[in-house]
Amino acid sequence: MSGLRNIGLVLAYDGTDFAGFQVQPNGTAVQAVLEAAIAAVTGEPGAKIAAASGRTDAGVHARGQVVNFRTAARIPTDRVALALNTHLPPTVRCLRAWDPPEDFHARFHARSKTYTYTIDNGVIYDPLRRLYAYHYPHPLDAGAMAIAAALLVGRHDFAAFRASGGSAKTSTRTVTACTVTAQPPQLILRISADGFLYNMVRIIAGTLLEVGAGKRSLQDVRRALQEPRRSNAGKTLPPVGLCLEHVEY
Amino acid sequence: MSGLRNIGLVLAYDGTDFAGFQVQPNGTAVQAVLEAAIAAVTGEPGAKIAAASGRTDAGVHARGQVVNFRTAARIPTDRVALALNTHLPPTVRCLRAWDPPEDFHARFHARSKTYTYTIDNGVIYDPLRRLYAYHYPHPLDAGAMAIAAALLVGRHDFAAFRASGGSAKTSTRTVTACTVTAQPPQLILRISADGFLYNMVRIIAGTLLEVGAGKRSLQDVRRALQEPRRSNAGKTLPPVGLCLEHVEY
Repeated sequence: MSGLRNIGLVLAYDGTDFAGFQVQPNGTAVQAVLEAAIAAVTGEPGAKIAAASGRTDAGVHARGQVVNFRTAARIPTDRVALALNTHLPPTVRCLRAWDPPEDFHARFHARSKTYTYTIDNGVIYDPLRRLYAYHYPHPLDAGAMAIAAALLVGRHDFAAFRASGGSAKTSTRTVTACTVTAQPPQLILRISADGFLYNMVRIIAGTLLEVGAGKRSLQDVRRALQEPRRSNAGKTLPPVGLCLEHVEY
Repeated sequence: MSGLRNIGLVLAYDGTDFAGFQVQPNGTAVQAVLEAAIAAVTGEPGAKIAAASGRTDAGVHARGQVVNFRTAARIPTDRVALALNTHLPPTVRCLRAWDPPEDFHARFHARSKTYTYTIDNGVIYDPLRRLYAYHYPHPLDAGAMAIAAALLVGRHDFAAFRASGGSAKTSTRTVTACTVTAQPPQLILRISADGFLYNMVRIIAGTLLEVGAGKRSLQDVRRALQEPRRSNAGKTLPPVGLCLEHVEY
């Protein structure tokens, strides 16, 4: 790649006040503040990232977003995170930087991604968690939700759990882990897969929530996999509870 | 008291954007938004609370602040929390309301209060916890901090851990529990006492942090209790990590 260095970054951000990861016509994107910081650190005006592991929507958080960018700057890799953090807003932190293989691509080479979706199941929501959890005040059967989550593990057509608007060619994905853990008053869905369809985690969270509320059976969840129509899955939960935790390469 | 009902409330709030609990000349106080909500619910303009368990400073959070107020309104007690929450900002929630004895006073009758102080000890701070934890990026010995915390348990003169500006007549308090727990990358100080002096938890947190950083010995902590001068204790940590968890009556 024309002799430029390829640098990988792990990012954490509070998505509350962002219009999502990717640069959009309206609102501030995480990508925009990141590219401004890269430009400041490298001295390369108009710096762009080469790729991100995936887009996160408006209001979605991250503890382990991965991006890569190319630069001619000579800053030592072990100083990049600190340097970027002096230019990033308080809501975005670069956790580490590393030297990947020259052809490393944060999106194409991702083997597995892990998301969490956090539900605040208290009768009254916790104001200290209001920006990081979706509040659902009615009783939920965490055990039933955990069983339903386990049904999703494996290679399936997840078209029922896909919002319109995504660009993926196939809707078959392999979910390698899907758990629901009770940390009262919170319930935490944790899901790993080789890739995710548009809004897939939020639709899975909504489907499992309906199972926990007794509005949807385990058989309904099986049917959503066997007859993969959107109408066979549950509602899309809001972005507030979603967090991109980790990407594996 | 003149035939009015006495109602007790438990409140949780995100103190980030408040100028503290008590009404102040500058900035919005939690008390002000609470009294406005009480006025709306009771139909009594200019409603005031009778007492709060204690003031929390600007930026300090609460999961269990207790207040009481008197009213002639007939709203059933079990509807008060829900009604107040429709008038409170999203950063403040009433968790419950109850009918205490007629002479119940949220401050005078408090037998014990519990605070936490949360330290984010990651090299880079977690942006999702930045509003609720104090970031300290250097290594801390949690074991030494836990031992130092245990030294504070008991009836002592805590004048070394008291900022000027408090109005308490005596600086002797009984700390009934004081623990430091590692939840990597966080360290959580949890302290219960029959009462707290001005900034006492933040000064204790600062002193324990200095112990964890190797800048202060256990003997120094003992001396701060035996020779209770402010200069014998550590720095006052910022409000961001402090949370009033619980009040017992």
